[in-house]
Amino acid sequence: MIYVDSLLCTPFEMDHPDQRPALEQLRAGGIGCFVSTLAWWEDAAETMDKLVKWRYMAEDNSDLVEIAYTVADIRRIAASGRTAILLGSQNLSFLSGRLGFVELFARMGMRVGQLTYNIQSDIGGSCYEPTDSGLSRFGKAVVREMNRAGMVVDLSHVGNTTSVQAIEHSDAPVAVTHANPYSLAPHARNKSDDVLDALKANDGMIGLAVYSNIVGEYTTPEKWSEMVAWTVDRIGLDKVGIGTDFEQTGGMPYLTWMRQGRWAREKQYGAGSKDNPGKATKLDWIQSPADFPNIEKALRARGFSEAEVVAIMGENWLNFFDRTFRTL
Amino acid sequence: MIYVDSLLCTPFEMDHPDQRPALEQLRAGGIGCFVSTLAWWEDAAETMDKLVKWRYMAEDNSDLVEIAYTVADIRRIAASGRTAILLGSQNLSFLSGRLGFVELFARMGMRVGQLTYNIQSDIGGSCYEPTDSGLSRFGKAVVREMNRAGMVVDLSHVGNTTSVQAIEHSDAPVAVTHANPYSLAPHARNKSDDVLDALKANDGMIGLAVYSNIVGEYTTPEKWSEMVAWTVDRIGLDKVGIGTDFEQTGGMPYLTWMRQGRWAREKQYGAGSKDNPGKATKLDWIQSPADFPNIEKALRARGFSEAEVVAIMGENWLNFFDRTFRTL
Repeated sequence: MIYVDSLLCTPFEMDHPDQRPALEQLRAGGIGCFVSTLAWWEDAAETMDKLVKWRYMAEDNSDLVEIAYTVADIRRIAASGRTAILLGSQNLSFLSGRLGFVELFARMGMRVGQLTYNIQSDIGGSCYEPTDSGLSRFGKAVVREMNRAGMVVDLSHVGNTTSVQAIEHSDAPVAVTHANPYSLAPHARNKSDDVLDALKANDGMIGLAVYSNIVGEYTTPEKWSEMVAWTVDRIGLDKVGIGTDFEQTGGMPYLTWMRQGRWAREKQYGAGSKDNPGKATKLDWIQSPADFPNIEKALRARGFSEAEVVAIMGENWLNFFDRTFRTL
Repeated sequence: MIYVDSLLCTPFEMDHPDQRPALEQLRAGGIGCFVSTLAWWEDAAETMDKLVKWRYMAEDNSDLVEIAYTVADIRRIAASGRTAILLGSQNLSFLSGRLGFVELFARMGMRVGQLTYNIQSDIGGSCYEPTDSGLSRFGKAVVREMNRAGMVVDLSHVGNTTSVQAIEHSDAPVAVTHANPYSLAPHARNKSDDVLDALKANDGMIGLAVYSNIVGEYTTPEKWSEMVAWTVDRIGLDKVGIGTDFEQTGGMPYLTWMRQGRWAREKQYGAGSKDNPGKATKLDWIQSPADFPNIEKALRARGFSEAEVVAIMGENWLNFFDRTFRTL
């Protein structure tokens, strides 16, 4: 069984004493593939610097990880007992406003791009925006170009109106790599039934998260797997996967960059709040990627069959990537 | 027979009334492939803008041209009666000082990179520099990285000391895409016997130019083909090709950008001079790429055999690209 985690936001490129231990946690958890977060607010050249740093990190730890560009790469790397890294970004700031950069970044290996992060952009509205603009004219062109270039459209932090419009405008299945159903866990970051229904019609995927700020009451393995079962009932077994949203090593300066970037002078709290400003505590049954097998256990305890467990734990994502990646 | 022109500096990406006529000149000349000049002084993002503009231009004129990434692409495009464009740059300013950007630009399709243009850079010395620094430490790393990424090292405007050091340091054959032998046409832009001998030992290639500022006395078809024969005798038949150095549409603002960039306040003359400041006049027998067949005629008149003509007119370059391009 190949485990896929459709979203980690650990800055593995940072030269940090915990870098390799964090990679070892992936191996301890048996994770065969994860989608990385290279950028939040970085422009084109800054994101390219990140691409280089991730490559160097992967080369320096080639006994544990390798960057994957295709599904065949993922299966080969996972089969070798290592973890495949899919290059992704939580924002399209790397486009620096250029439509043509979609293809260039796809050629450079970027496989997943979230349309917006925590604020409105030239593409559309964020989940935290008081008024969601919907998908902009530029955003429409970007979605189609991402389809053509085989870059996965990620809607996790995108506003609901923009999300639904992006799904309707997309020629390819799209993804929510890390969020939960709003009906169960009402938080701005989670997805309304409208979005989930549109995702179902689009034959897309959602990766359910264990990030404590967005799980609501679904904190235990029993409750969390109930959320999985609810989502499966709502949109179909083949459309649900796992996207933990784990961050392992970044520390407060990284959290500040993630949440505040260069767009705000005042402290920003992201999915937290003034009363909960720091790094979120982890759920006690899944403290790090090393505990990924506890998700499998929870799904089995919930009564999912072997084939269903295999699908949710990773095969659904691999199947989705097969339908969306493209070599230019 | 596939004609290859190893250097054009026409800014085909410019939205200009002469853009399509200039492309039609390539077809009139039966040119199967040329190496383009995307950048002179442009940094990473600016060069990416150029990559996008060239792609759009190629899409908008797909009946005449297509961007080629491999030798198989070149042969397919030429066989279809169109012209294959190899993406190249006359400077490594697109690296913006980053070693890792070599691989990223190779992935984006850049197949040829000149180590320096008309001034010293972080890589090494230019042919116009009073003191040639030689290949810098960064330059050494860049050459090896270009070898690995399958990006052709071009030495046309590079200083002689830097050129010889680059050749010695290179793991792969290198190119002089557009220059002539200094022994015959003494001009700073042309290549000393030392460089030519090193190029021979390296199994590299030179593309001989018809740019009037650097042909010396070798202005007629008879004289110019004598220069070809001399070069063939010096370094071997398989190492000589054609790199016209033609520019068709740019006009004076483009020439000023090419020569002066952002590095000088005073007017710069490139291969020209204060007494010869404008665009160079073309040799009367080869006024544009449409006259490319006149080179073939000149070679036949010189007594080269059919196989030798085929080699010099293009096959030598295709063979060289086969030995240097790499898919990452």
